[in-house]
Amino acid sequence: MKRILFTLIAGATCIGMLTCCKVGDVPEVGTSVASIASPDGTLTASFYLDGNGTPLYTLDKGEGKVILPSRMGFELQGDEKDLRSGFALDGEVVKDTFDETWKPVWGEEESIRNHYNEVCIPLSREDGSRMLIRARLYDDGLGFRYEFPLENSLVYFDIVEEKTEFALGADHTAWWISGDYDTQEYNYTRSRLSEVGAISKGRRIGNASATGFSDFGVQTALQLKTDDGLYINIHEAAVVDYPTANLEYNPSTKTLTTHLTPDAEGLKGRMQAPCKTPWRTVMVVGSATDVLSSRLILNLNDPCALEDVSWIHPVKYMGVWWEMITNKSSWSYTDDYPSVQLGVTDYSKSKPHGRHGANNENVRRYIDFAAANGFDGILIEGWNEGWEDWFGKQKDYVFDFVTPYPDFDLPALNKYAHEKGIRLIMHHETSSSTLNYERHMEDAYNLMNKYGYDAVKSGYVGNIIPYGEHHYSQPIINHYLYAVKSAAEHHIMVNAHEAVRPTGLCRTYPNLIGNESALGTEYRSNIEPGHTCILPFTRLQGGPMDYTPGIFEMDMSKLNPSESGHMRMTLANQLGLYVTFYSPLQMAADLPEHYASHMDAFQFIKDVAVDWDRSLYIEAEVGQYIVTARHPKLSTLNSSQAGVATLADGKKDALSGAARFVYALPANATAKDLVTAKARDTWYVGGVAGEEGKTVNVKLDFLTPGVKYEGTLYTDGPDADYRTNPTDYRIEKGVYDSTCTVEVRMAPSGGFAMSLREIF
Amino acid sequence: MKRILFTLIAGATCIGMLTCCKVGDVPEVGTSVASIASPDGTLTASFYLDGNGTPLYTLDKGEGKVILPSRMGFELQGDEKDLRSGFALDGEVVKDTFDETWKPVWGEEESIRNHYNEVCIPLSREDGSRMLIRARLYDDGLGFRYEFPLENSLVYFDIVEEKTEFALGADHTAWWISGDYDTQEYNYTRSRLSEVGAISKGRRIGNASATGFSDFGVQTALQLKTDDGLYINIHEAAVVDYPTANLEYNPSTKTLTTHLTPDAEGLKGRMQAPCKTPWRTVMVVGSATDVLSSRLILNLNDPCALEDVSWIHPVKYMGVWWEMITNKSSWSYTDDYPSVQLGVTDYSKSKPHGRHGANNENVRRYIDFAAANGFDGILIEGWNEGWEDWFGKQKDYVFDFVTPYPDFDLPALNKYAHEKGIRLIMHHETSSSTLNYERHMEDAYNLMNKYGYDAVKSGYVGNIIPYGEHHYSQPIINHYLYAVKSAAEHHIMVNAHEAVRPTGLCRTYPNLIGNESALGTEYRSNIEPGHTCILPFTRLQGGPMDYTPGIFEMDMSKLNPSESGHMRMTLANQLGLYVTFYSPLQMAADLPEHYASHMDAFQFIKDVAVDWDRSLYIEAEVGQYIVTARHPKLSTLNSSQAGVATLADGKKDALSGAARFVYALPANATAKDLVTAKARDTWYVGGVAGEEGKTVNVKLDFLTPGVKYEGTLYTDGPDADYRTNPTDYRIEKGVYDSTCTVEVRMAPSGGFAMSLREIF
Repeated sequence: MKRILFTLIAGATCIGMLTCCKVGDVPEVGTSVASIASPDGTLTASFYLDGNGTPLYTLDKGEGKVILPSRMGFELQGDEKDLRSGFALDGEVVKDTFDETWKPVWGEEESIRNHYNEVCIPLSREDGSRMLIRARLYDDGLGFRYEFPLENSLVYFDIVEEKTEFALGADHTAWWISGDYDTQEYNYTRSRLSEVGAISKGRRIGNASATGFSDFGVQTALQLKTDDGLYINIHEAAVVDYPTANLEYNPSTKTLTTHLTPDAEGLKGRMQAPCKTPWRTVMVVGSATDVLSSRLILNLNDPCALEDVSWIHPVKYMGVWWEMITNKSSWSYTDDYPSVQLGVTDYSKSKPHGRHGANNENVRRYIDFAAANGFDGILIEGWNEGWEDWFGKQKDYVFDFVTPYPDFDLPALNKYAHEKGIRLIMHHETSSSTLNYERHMEDAYNLMNKYGYDAVKSGYVGNIIPYGEHHYSQPIINHYLYAVKSAAEHHIMVNAHEAVRPTGLCRTYPNLIGNESALGTEYRSNIEPGHTCILPFTRLQGGPMDYTPGIFEMDMSKLNPSESGHMRMTLANQLGLYVTFYSPLQMAADLPEHYASHMDAFQFIKDVAVDWDRSLYIEAEVGQYIVTARHPKLSTLNSSQAGVATLADGKKDALSGAARFVYALPANATAKDLVTAKARDTWYVGGVAGEEGKTVNVKLDFLTPGVKYEGTLYTDGPDADYRTNPTDYRIEKGVYDSTCTVEVRMAPSGGFAMSLREIF
Repeated sequence: MKRILFTLIAGATCIGMLTCCKVGDVPEVGTSVASIASPDGTLTASFYLDGNGTPLYTLDKGEGKVILPSRMGFELQGDEKDLRSGFALDGEVVKDTFDETWKPVWGEEESIRNHYNEVCIPLSREDGSRMLIRARLYDDGLGFRYEFPLENSLVYFDIVEEKTEFALGADHTAWWISGDYDTQEYNYTRSRLSEVGAISKGRRIGNASATGFSDFGVQTALQLKTDDGLYINIHEAAVVDYPTANLEYNPSTKTLTTHLTPDAEGLKGRMQAPCKTPWRTVMVVGSATDVLSSRLILNLNDPCALEDVSWIHPVKYMGVWWEMITNKSSWSYTDDYPSVQLGVTDYSKSKPHGRHGANNENVRRYIDFAAANGFDGILIEGWNEGWEDWFGKQKDYVFDFVTPYPDFDLPALNKYAHEKGIRLIMHHETSSSTLNYERHMEDAYNLMNKYGYDAVKSGYVGNIIPYGEHHYSQPIINHYLYAVKSAAEHHIMVNAHEAVRPTGLCRTYPNLIGNESALGTEYRSNIEPGHTCILPFTRLQGGPMDYTPGIFEMDMSKLNPSESGHMRMTLANQLGLYVTFYSPLQMAADLPEHYASHMDAFQFIKDVAVDWDRSLYIEAEVGQYIVTARHPKLSTLNSSQAGVATLADGKKDALSGAARFVYALPANATAKDLVTAKARDTWYVGGVAGEEGKTVNVKLDFLTPGVKYEGTLYTDGPDADYRTNPTDYRIEKGVYDSTCTVEVRMAPSGGFAMSLREIF
């Protein structure tokens, strides 16, 4: 870590010292206050105060204007301390350079460089309000936030709206979902921003809880592309104790303005100095692959706050879940009651309807299959009392998170699983009653500790209780983090579904190993082709997604005769996702029997790693295709050695969890075993394509020169098409080295996957 | 317990069987459905369905009409299932008689008779909505509620408004406070109901959180008096999982209509069948003393839900509190910070402002005084971090309830207190952030258990968090009970201030030993003369109040030179309150040094019991005067034996807590000691008067005939007047028997107290 501090005297005289300052270019914005360049000099961010004392900023890439003069500030509640104008510079503008390389607990690479130039601009108003603007400029983008020091006439204040603007100056192409206070579970639209207003309503498909606010509202991360081929990505980082931001587009000014999520009283941030907002981020890069390799959001988050992370590990899992999503089986246990009351309803006396998925026999079937195929965990949903009336009732005391149904023998199933090296993954559906969840959280986590669960999938389906709050309002943002921090105290990893889309907090709290918070596989035939070619540019910018790939049976009627839809992608596409979608938590979502019918293709899912020390974004275009190559953290091992460690209760691992996992070593593996395993180099390559398909030529120049690799290539077959023949795939083995180029045709909504293992 | 069940066949034919039915009297209400008489036959309640299928009821006392035909029902949200009309009788009208005597854990008498006639009327609508009206008619009043069975087309439904009416038919005199969603801390007004609208606004004094809804809104318990001298009291019983009701008066129809407290989304009851509403109650009796002796509200609550109540005991206590209320000292510790952050602000490095009341030395001073004078407990407020900015900020994480200030040595002070037979009483000010309180509740209760606290005063000052909720909305009603039930699991007694005014739940959960929930002593000079002559008719109908009497120094400037006000009552009035106000939790609220100046008068506070086996309401008129005599539970003992049991940690009591307490026996007392103590009969008599004062002639005919009693009479002195000489009092000793009558003059806002002890 290298830190260089500049301190400049406030005022006009200092501006002349800034070689990057281009005051002459922006006469309309008033006085220049400060300007910084990115470390490589390609980006310039400048800050101004106009004649009304309103702060503004601009962002340029070389000679190109990325963000035109854009206002900054806040409208406050209930007094005259309006933070939109009246500001003057108050003290020294402080500049800084920061350059550090840090190692994530899990991630797409072993280490991440965090290199930026920073400026901090102290502002005040005559009424004594003090506000600092802190900006960090990276080679790939800008982050800035507002800070409120304790010495302030503003100590407690309520935000009516944050007024941060992003003046784009042109009608860029955008990949967007409608603005919402409660859900991101929408398909994306590609259009000009000016077209959002006309299209938005029709793109809002049914959701258990959805609250739009404007036809011109869009969510972040928002991926834009200029007609000059620049890729601009607007998002936010480190949303803590603050509501989630949407954006609202004004076609006449070509400006996006921040629109925060209101709480139950309509306010958008209850602030107590000292405090700071999340970072507003503008990534600007020259190619789609540069968006995928950017670590802007993670870098703007605080370092890991957990002292001990030894218990955090990547997870490859299966689940008693897809059969419920497809209505082949049910979360609930009985049809006896129109409503149930926990602690009153006696399930032992009710008549089972016979479709309950989380029964002992079925769970053991999944455990057996998962154990035989090298998985780490089994998620089981619908294990606990209350599923008969959990949905859509805004029922407060909906689950207690500790009481299993009569046919789910929790201690025995955990014991059975642990003996086979499988950990059960807990499921806490909150039905969005965060009040009720918090009341039972400690007992729920204690139950997990008692029986050896170390990961939980939590769910937030439906409207939030406390009444009037939203999934993205400040109190609920605080709830999600409360749940993650409380889980960390219990050494529990969290995978929260229907919560807020992430903003990089997994850097600070790496036990947040996953989120859904986007349209995932559960939407089945509603997922549009190309969707997975957009998510890595948008949703995944904030952190990994539990997308739950791996569907082999695309015809939903095979699972449930009353459902006629088909998944709109090929089987090879599903394999490719394990590489193109980064997540330390990867599911093989389909049923064991569907994998059993395609064990040759399933081999890739068995083999593929979920934690990486290098990731290469080979070729990509938003919504059209993505090709990625990844190298398992350290190295990887012979697929014949695949299989997870035995995590029998109380057994001390010979190696730390992470190392053992990556090399798929058994629990009794020694350091010597690790050395042997590391000796065999391995790469995984994956590709996914959108509606049009794509043929790519993948150069294998990332392989170690002079080394031969055995490659297994899983591709769409010649007849593959998501509409007509989604399961036509081919598997081809060959010997490859770094001089090879592999031509692969990806079918419409198709894909491919490839494993490459060093030949000894 | 005696239970007689009648089952009547539904329909008109059965009506003729009811001898009490007076269909002919009420032709305007449509078809009579059922009618019941009270056990002594004086009251009659009748139920009807009008031509629109709207249920109505009436209540008569003899030939007098108490409640004219009044509509019942609900307006629901979002569908056509409007529960205001369209009903028909659906099944059998079931009648029942119930007669049981039950023993409260603590109370005004040893046993309470619960004797009523009941009718249950099953109604349904064509859309399949089913609703039962269950009514219980006592000799002193009516209770009825709505029940929704599980077999219903209404399973989940939301109430827009409950439409229960109380058609009074005349413009009664009322003692009322303004309707509000958040506070009952108002002085009462006596006026005709028709005058409420013109007066109400001016009677709403400043409150930390207050939300009126109508100039004609009034709160319950609402005490009415007819021009014929009937006393009508309208309230509710057993408010569980339902919002608190206010009433709104319509002067043109002379009808009160139910007005429930809305939640953050404006709804007034999220219902899940099977469920029931609270009881709507109409007490109607012939005298003011009959109001005071009524147990209507307690009887309508469920029996005790706690299996083990041995740990619940009455408490006489002092507190480090009045000095803070009067600004003689402070809850807070430092002036260093405009805002504090728990876990971040380092109090050990801050500069104490020197006014912190809860410091070790001061607390020990209170412990010493309380121990020397036979008290059980010491409440200490301001002991924990966070008081610098707790008020009026709607700050969520305002207290953690476990971290003491640097100058409060929690373990050492508890040890010191326990060695002297004193228990410290915990204080949990929530600042109305119920969210934050629930997050920390388990740890907070565990801390109490660890150090031997067995009672907590909780506070709910300010606006509620979750945002948009009210002190009386359904989610917060649920919070209060959650806190009480959780406390019971920890064997902790609760005294909740600024929570909802009670509705008899202390019968079911007797660890709810107190509430404030009315204008209490803390309002000092704002309390109007006569206030304490009203509260027993209104606020105390639902359960005991921690009014905190016992102020001896009425001149507030003696405590804090910047405060000019005087308490508007006499010292003798303060003594009388210990008898006229029933509470198992009684405070001596003034400072030790003020008691030290009047040890002769203080003797009564030392002597008086706080738990009773008989209570006699000798003479009373609402707002004017109350004279009450009470007999300690079982009997009582020589005042020279006064002193509390030693509750040293871990020491096993020789007698159960309650028995030992009542007789003020030390911890090592034996059953034989108890027999001795019981042998000496004792009575306490108390009186309080309003603005006009009152002279009463108290017949001591309740004393055991033929037994001589030593009496000590504490009265207002000849010059006593709350305006000019509040501390003029006289103490007179004499010998009395059951043939004596004692004439006592109570000064304006004065009172008296008397102890009577059998002479051996």
